[in-house]
Amino acid sequence: MLQTRNAKRTARAAVKIAVDMVKEGLITKEEAILRVSPDQINQLLHAQIDPKAEKKVIAKGLPASPGAASGKVVFSSREAEKRGKEGEKVLLVRPETTPDDIGGLAAAQGVLTSRGGMTSHAAVVARGMGKPAVVGCEAIKIDLEKEQFVVGDVVVKKDDIITIDGSTGEVILGEVPMIPPTLSDELKELLSWADEIRKIGVRANADTPEDAKKAFEYGAEGIGLARTEHMFLGNRLPLVQEMILAETEEDRRKALDKLLPVQREDFIGLFRAMQGKPVTIRLIDPPLHEFLPPLLDLTVEVEVMKAKGITGKELEEKEKLLAVVKRLHEFNPMLGFRGCRLGMVYPEIFEMQVRAIMEAAVAVAKEGLPVKPEIMIPLVALESEMKVLGELIHRVAKQVIEESGVNVEYKVGTMIEVPRAAIIADKLAKVAEFFSFGTNDLTQMTFAFSRDDAEGKFLGIYREKGYIEEDPFEHLDAEGVAELMKIGIQKGRSTRPDLKVGICGEHGGDPKSIELCYILGLDYVSCSPFRVPVARLAAAQATLKHQKKMEFVDRTA
Amino acid sequence: MLQTRNAKRTARAAVKIAVDMVKEGLITKEEAILRVSPDQINQLLHAQIDPKAEKKVIAKGLPASPGAASGKVVFSSREAEKRGKEGEKVLLVRPETTPDDIGGLAAAQGVLTSRGGMTSHAAVVARGMGKPAVVGCEAIKIDLEKEQFVVGDVVVKKDDIITIDGSTGEVILGEVPMIPPTLSDELKELLSWADEIRKIGVRANADTPEDAKKAFEYGAEGIGLARTEHMFLGNRLPLVQEMILAETEEDRRKALDKLLPVQREDFIGLFRAMQGKPVTIRLIDPPLHEFLPPLLDLTVEVEVMKAKGITGKELEEKEKLLAVVKRLHEFNPMLGFRGCRLGMVYPEIFEMQVRAIMEAAVAVAKEGLPVKPEIMIPLVALESEMKVLGELIHRVAKQVIEESGVNVEYKVGTMIEVPRAAIIADKLAKVAEFFSFGTNDLTQMTFAFSRDDAEGKFLGIYREKGYIEEDPFEHLDAEGVAELMKIGIQKGRSTRPDLKVGICGEHGGDPKSIELCYILGLDYVSCSPFRVPVARLAAAQATLKHQKKMEFVDRTA
Repeated sequence: MLQTRNAKRTARAAVKIAVDMVKEGLITKEEAILRVSPDQINQLLHAQIDPKAEKKVIAKGLPASPGAASGKVVFSSREAEKRGKEGEKVLLVRPETTPDDIGGLAAAQGVLTSRGGMTSHAAVVARGMGKPAVVGCEAIKIDLEKEQFVVGDVVVKKDDIITIDGSTGEVILGEVPMIPPTLSDELKELLSWADEIRKIGVRANADTPEDAKKAFEYGAEGIGLARTEHMFLGNRLPLVQEMILAETEEDRRKALDKLLPVQREDFIGLFRAMQGKPVTIRLIDPPLHEFLPPLLDLTVEVEVMKAKGITGKELEEKEKLLAVVKRLHEFNPMLGFRGCRLGMVYPEIFEMQVRAIMEAAVAVAKEGLPVKPEIMIPLVALESEMKVLGELIHRVAKQVIEESGVNVEYKVGTMIEVPRAAIIADKLAKVAEFFSFGTNDLTQMTFAFSRDDAEGKFLGIYREKGYIEEDPFEHLDAEGVAELMKIGIQKGRSTRPDLKVGICGEHGGDPKSIELCYILGLDYVSCSPFRVPVARLAAAQATLKHQKKMEFVDRTA
Repeated sequence: MLQTRNAKRTARAAVKIAVDMVKEGLITKEEAILRVSPDQINQLLHAQIDPKAEKKVIAKGLPASPGAASGKVVFSSREAEKRGKEGEKVLLVRPETTPDDIGGLAAAQGVLTSRGGMTSHAAVVARGMGKPAVVGCEAIKIDLEKEQFVVGDVVVKKDDIITIDGSTGEVILGEVPMIPPTLSDELKELLSWADEIRKIGVRANADTPEDAKKAFEYGAEGIGLARTEHMFLGNRLPLVQEMILAETEEDRRKALDKLLPVQREDFIGLFRAMQGKPVTIRLIDPPLHEFLPPLLDLTVEVEVMKAKGITGKELEEKEKLLAVVKRLHEFNPMLGFRGCRLGMVYPEIFEMQVRAIMEAAVAVAKEGLPVKPEIMIPLVALESEMKVLGELIHRVAKQVIEESGVNVEYKVGTMIEVPRAAIIADKLAKVAEFFSFGTNDLTQMTFAFSRDDAEGKFLGIYREKGYIEEDPFEHLDAEGVAELMKIGIQKGRSTRPDLKVGICGEHGGDPKSIELCYILGLDYVSCSPFRVPVARLAAAQATLKHQKKMEFVDRTA
C-alpha cells in the first residue's frame, strides 16, 4: 500500500522538482522532460480520494488502472450497461470479465474483480478506457446468484455503494470525497516544454462535444478520430433501425433525412469545441446488424413464443425482424459488411453523413469560427473504394458549398487498417490526402487475432507462458504491424510527398507505441482525451531520444 | 447449346491435333502445349453424357461448372448434406445458394439454381469443388414450400431423379447413361510433355486414400495438403467430442489415445497411395466448436424445453453441453482459437497427431515402401509458435523413431496464411524446412474479406459494378496477396536458401494463379486431384511464357 501511495507522491514531486530545477538553472528543459515518466503523468490525471477523508477499507486487490470511483454495486454487465447509460453511477463487480462485459465496463464508473492479474481482461480493458479498476481481490467472495459479496463479516449487496481506488487497490465501503484531476501549474509548464520539443503531433479520439472540450483543455491539437456510429445510438437508434429495415432506397433516404439534422448538430458541437483545429470524422464503420437485436436472443424469443403457442401480431413482427437479422448475420463480422463497404453498397448513407459534416462546417464558419473538417473512409482495401467514395465526398461537399455560398476547406482521407491497404498505399494516396492507421483492426488482421476472442481463449495463456512478450493490442507490434505501416507510409508518400499520416488506434496513447510512431515518421498520434497529456510527454521523450538519429532519416520520404 | 457442345468437341480435337502434329514433325512439343487451353483440359476431366443416349431436356440454364450428374432432387441443403453423407445420390435445387449451403453443395452430386450468373455463389463454389452446376435456369419455377419445381407442364417433385449437364446447361428428366472421365492416350502424352517442360511442381490436396489414388493417377508429384480434421468427422466425431469435453488433461489424453489408432490408419492409407512421394500433413486447423452442435440451435433447444416445462436428465445434459459450447463460442472464428493455437494450449492434441503420422510412416516403411512425411503447422503468426511446435514435433518424431528402430526421414514446415507470418518469414524459416501458402485464409485476412460473408453481402455487388475485376478467392490477387507472398518468400529464403515453397489454397488449381506462382518462384502448386492435369498444363505454359525472363531472376534468392 505504501508503495503505491509513494508512487503518487513521487509523481507529483517529480514534476515539481523537475520544473523547479529548470527555473533554478540546474537542468535544461530537455533534461526535465526526461526525468518524468509518462506513467507518473497518468497517475496525476485521475480522480483521487481526498487524503483527508475518512475511509473504511474492507479489502485490497491489485491496483490495475489508476483513479478512484464510487457507485452502486451491480453484478451483471447487462445491468451495468443499462443503468449506466441511463445516467446512474454503478460499479461493476465480477469474478472476472470477458469480452461480453465490454458494454458494462464502459458504462460503469469502475470495475472490481476477485480473480485475475495486472494483465487480466478487466485490467487491460479498464486501462484502455481510463477507468479505475481493482482486480484479483481474492478476499471478496462473490455470490452472483444472491447478488452480493462477502468480505470478512461485511456483506455488500447489490445497490450498496462502494468506492475503489485503482491507484492503491483499496476497496472502501460507501462513498468517499474525491479530488477531481487537474493539471497543476507545474505540469502545465512541463507539458508546454514538451510541446516545444516534440516533432510529432498529438490529437484526441473524441465522439462528443464533452470529450472534445476535455481533449482541447488537455492540449490536443485536433481530433484524430470522431466515430460517427456512436451518434447512432440512444434515442437515435429507432431512426437508424428504420433506415436499416427500409426495403427500398426511397424509404432508406426518408429515414436518412431524419438522421441528417441530428448528425449535423453532433458535428457542430465537435467543430465549436475544437475552435478551428482539424477534426477528423470517420464515416460509419460497424456492420448494420450491430444496431439490431442479436440473432441468438431474437431466435430464442421467437421459438419460445411458438413453443408456448403464442401467435398474433407480436410474433409476426418479431419474425419479420428476425428475417432481417438473419439476412444481415455474419460468421466473421470483423471481416464482413462494414466500413466503406456499406458506403459502396448504400451510397446514400455516406452521402447523408458527408452532407451533415459539411453543413455543420458551413454553419460554424458562418458563426465566424474557423473550421477544418477531415472526412475519413474506414476499412478501405481496394483502390476502387477510395476512388468511388472520394468522388462521392467531393460531389456532396461541393454541393453544400455551392448551396451555402460558404467555401469551407476540407480534406479526404482513409484509415489504413486492412493489410492490403498498406500494400497498395501508393494507389490509395492518389485520392487520399491523409492516412490514419487504425492499428486496432490492423493488429487483428495482421495477427489473425480477434480481439474479442483471443484474450480469453489463448492470448492470456500465451502471455502467461511467455510465448508472446507483450499484448499487441496494448503495445504496437514492432516486428509485424509496424512493418506493414512502414510499407504503407513509404508507398503513400511515394505518390504524395506531403501526405499527412497519423494513428488513431488505442496504441496512440501508449508511450512505447508513440516512440515507434515517431521512428516510423508519423505526423501525429491520436488517443483518448485523458491520455493526451501522457502522449505529449511521451512524444517529447521520443523526439529527444531519437533526435540525433533522425537527422539522418528523411522522414518525409 | 451448339456452342458448348462445340467447346467439348473442340477440346478433344485440340488435344488430338496438337499431339498428332508433333508426331508428324509439324510443330514442337512446346508449341503443342501452348495450343491447348487449361479450360479445355478441364472439360475433358468430367463425366459426360453418353452422346448416344436419349434424353428429355426440360430446360436450359448457364453451364456454370463442367461435368454431368444425376440424382434425386432435394430442395434443402441440410437434407442434401444429411442424405448425401449417408451415401445417397442427391441433386440440390435452390433458387440461389449462400454460404449456408456449402455443406449441401459438397454432399450433392451437383447443383441447379434458378437465379444467378456465371459468378454467382453456386457457380463459383461448384467450380471450386469440381462439381457439375447449372445456374440461372430461370425457366424452372421453384416452390420450396411444396418441395417441387415446375417447368412448362412438367412438375418435378422432391426425390424425382433428374440429370444436369454443367458443360451445356441442360436439365434432363430422369437418369441418363454417362461416360466417366478418362485421360485419353493423347492427353496423357501431351501432359507428359508438359511435365518435361514445366519448372514448377504439381501436387494435390487430398485427405483420403481414394483422393490420394486419384491424385497419383492424374500425375500429382505428392500431396501438398492433407487436412487431418476431415478425419475427425463421421464415426470419429463422438471420440473428438469426448476429447473436447474432457475437463482434465488426463481425460483429454484418454480420448486422444482412442483417436490415435484411427488417425494412424488414415495416414497409412495416404502414404501407401502416394508410393513414396512426399505427403504434407497439416495438423488440426478448425476451432474446436466446429465439432459441437451450433450455439444457436442448442440454445433454442434448451430454451424451448424450458418453456414447455420439460425437466430432467435430458435437459441437464443439454445444458451442460451448452455451457461448453458457450465457452468455446467466438465472435470471429476465422481469427480465433484454431490452428497452431490449439497445439500451443493443448499440446497433447498435436502430440497425438504427430505420433499417428510417424507411427504410420514407420509401419509403411516396414512394408518396404518409401515414405516421405512432411508435417505442417497451420496459422502460425509468431516465431514462438514455430519454435515450440517445431520442438514438439521433433521430440515426438524422435521418440517414435527410437521406439521402432526405423529411421524415417520427415520434414517440419508451416503454412503461411496469416499476414504476419509472411512478414516474419525469415524468423519462421529458422525452424521451418518448407512453407506452404494458404492463400484462402491469406486472402481473407489481407483483404479483411470473410469468405463466408463477403459474396452475399457485398462482393457480388462489387463484381457486378466493376469495383473489383476478379474474385480474389478464384484468382490470386497480384497487387496485394502476392506482394505479401513475395515478402514471405524473399525473407524465408534469406534464412534458408533451400527452403521449399508451395501453395495449397484453391488458387493452386487456377491457371492464372499458377502463372503468378511461377513468377513468384514457388517450387510447387497443390490443388484438388481433378485439377492436377489442368495444373500440369498450366505450369508448363507458365514456364514457356516466362522462361526467357526467368533466366535473369535468381528464383532461389
